Amino acid sequence: MTFIYQRTVRFGDTDAAGVVYFANVLSICHEAYEAALINLGVDARSFFRGEELAVPIVHGEVDFHRPMRCGDQLHIRVLPVMTTASEFEIRYEVLIEGFDRPVSRALTRHVCIDVQTRKRILIPAMLKQWIEAEAVD
Amino acid sequence: MTFIYQRTVRFGDTDAAGVVYFANVLSICHEAYEAALINLGVDARSFFRGEELAVPIVHGEVDFHRPMRCGDQLHIRVLPVMTTASEFEIRYEVLIEGFDRPVSRALTRHVCIDVQTRKRILIPAMLKQWIEAEAVD
Amino acid sequence: MTFIYQRTVRFGDTDAAGVVYFANVLSICHEAYEAALINLGVDARSFFRGEELAVPIVHGEVDFHRPMRCGDQLHIRVLPVMTTASEFEIRYEVLIEGFDRPVSRALTRHVCIDVQTRKRILIPAMLKQWIEAEAVD
Amino acid sequence: MTFIYQRTVRFGDTDAAGVVYFANVLSICHEAYEAALINLGVDARSFFRGEELAVPIVHGEVDFHRPMRCGDQLHIRVLPVMTTASEFEIRYEVLIEGFDRPVSRALTRHVCIDVQTRKRILIPAMLKQWIEAEAVD
Repeated sequence: MTFIYQRTVRFGDTDAAGVVYFANVLSICHEAYEAALINLGVDARSFFRGEELAVPIVHGEVDFHRPMRCGDQLHIRVLPVMTTASEFEIRYEVLIEGFDRPVSRALTRHVCIDVQTRKRILIPAMLKQWIEAEAVD
Repeated sequence: MTFIYQRTVRFGDTDAAGVVYFANVLSICHEAYEAALINLGVDARSFFRGEELAVPIVHGEVDFHRPMRCGDQLHIRVLPVMTTASEFEIRYEVLIEGFDRPVSRALTRHVCIDVQTRKRILIPAMLKQWIEAEAVD
Repeated sequence: MTFIYQRTVRFGDTDAAGVVYFANVLSICHEAYEAALINLGVDARSFFRGEELAVPIVHGEVDFHRPMRCGDQLHIRVLPVMTTASEFEIRYEVLIEGFDRPVSRALTRHVCIDVQTRKRILIPAMLKQWIEAEAVD
Repeated sequence: MTFIYQRTVRFGDTDAAGVVYFANVLSICHEAYEAALINLGVDARSFFRGEELAVPIVHGEVDFHRPMRCGDQLHIRVLPVMTTASEFEIRYEVLIEGFDRPVSRALTRHVCIDVQTRKRILIPAMLKQWIEAEAVD
């Protein structure tokens, strides 16, 4: 089942145009990815420090359909997709109640590498299971 | 009853020393203040844009007792205190399960002003009720 | 002549993996865009508040080729490109001395709209001149 | 001679009230501290990662006298003061041309510790020289 992250837009997310600063939408989507991993049982502290395995982002992108404002209740759908044996993408749909279409869509592409050798490795089993389970949906 | 805000430390909160970047602790405390106001029924969008009334921060401070790391589950106690008829402080205690003492304490001081005249005004009734109710605790 | 923005990577830009947090690379590129506009004579305060004309970002993307670390001296090339009569893109190349290839490339797409009607308008003369001058390079 | 850091306020520094978000003023002051250290010859990358010596912030505070807006040119005076043999403070005055008084004042308190033992150590010679030289002013 698709993981959904709930997040209230905070004052610190906004800019002087009165809406969420564009780059912060990617940060909020990354929070959703973190919440999905914690939900899977991943230990966020060691995972994101990259102590053994590192999963750096090699590409990010985001489209803005409607501005988001302080106090808005966001619902972010987190959709993982395997692209190669060592690489996956996360697609995000940012929804606000009352709007049919997502207010924003985003994507991050991640590569699994060995911290010592800096070479690509296979996506670890736990992530792979999650990605495959989502694909069945 | 004291409002408690729950917040997971996110990767974007951290810095290259592996812990929450010092200034982000104040942002996280401000989130707790926002959540307390929304809990009171305040409309975050108009309140923080300062459309009628503005409540700017004139002073902030923060003490760090222990570092916070990605994935830590923070519990932030939000304690409002009236200091003058137009001014109040919010005191924050940041707690992590398993530690007796707060890992951080912070404070923000707020002044109520009229947006048109930029002069001090009385703390509005809704905030005043909240602050007084907390003082009774 | 292509505008180049110089920027030292700050501690607050980094995350617990020891490198610049991915979404912050887009913020740093936006700083480069702001510096290019100020260099043209644009008044940053009114331009970015969107008091008359608004130029919201409708799309952003970024590729990461090498990590950036605290203290790195970035040189960011800012390359504007007109895409339609009301829309332009800014392409960014992030360079670090000693590396031949950019460490990162990014892109933001901007639409010019009238603040009152929220309808698309022509790219204003000052921006158009800049974009056309760059195209000649 | 007092180190002065020049910094343009960027759009990403602001919030929906149209001014610099309060916690970002502390980040900007920290940038000034980093620039002062780089100016001394300190290697920012290893210093801030805390590879040998760590100099964590144990306290920060900031006062706001006037709001800062996108495009404002800040001049930040960086004033180090030794408080004990292992502890120092940095005081910051944030100035904008045309205003006599600082628009903001801030302070960060730092403790020198050994990364292995986590015990307090003496302020290292390079920092001590800088702090003492400033005190003579």
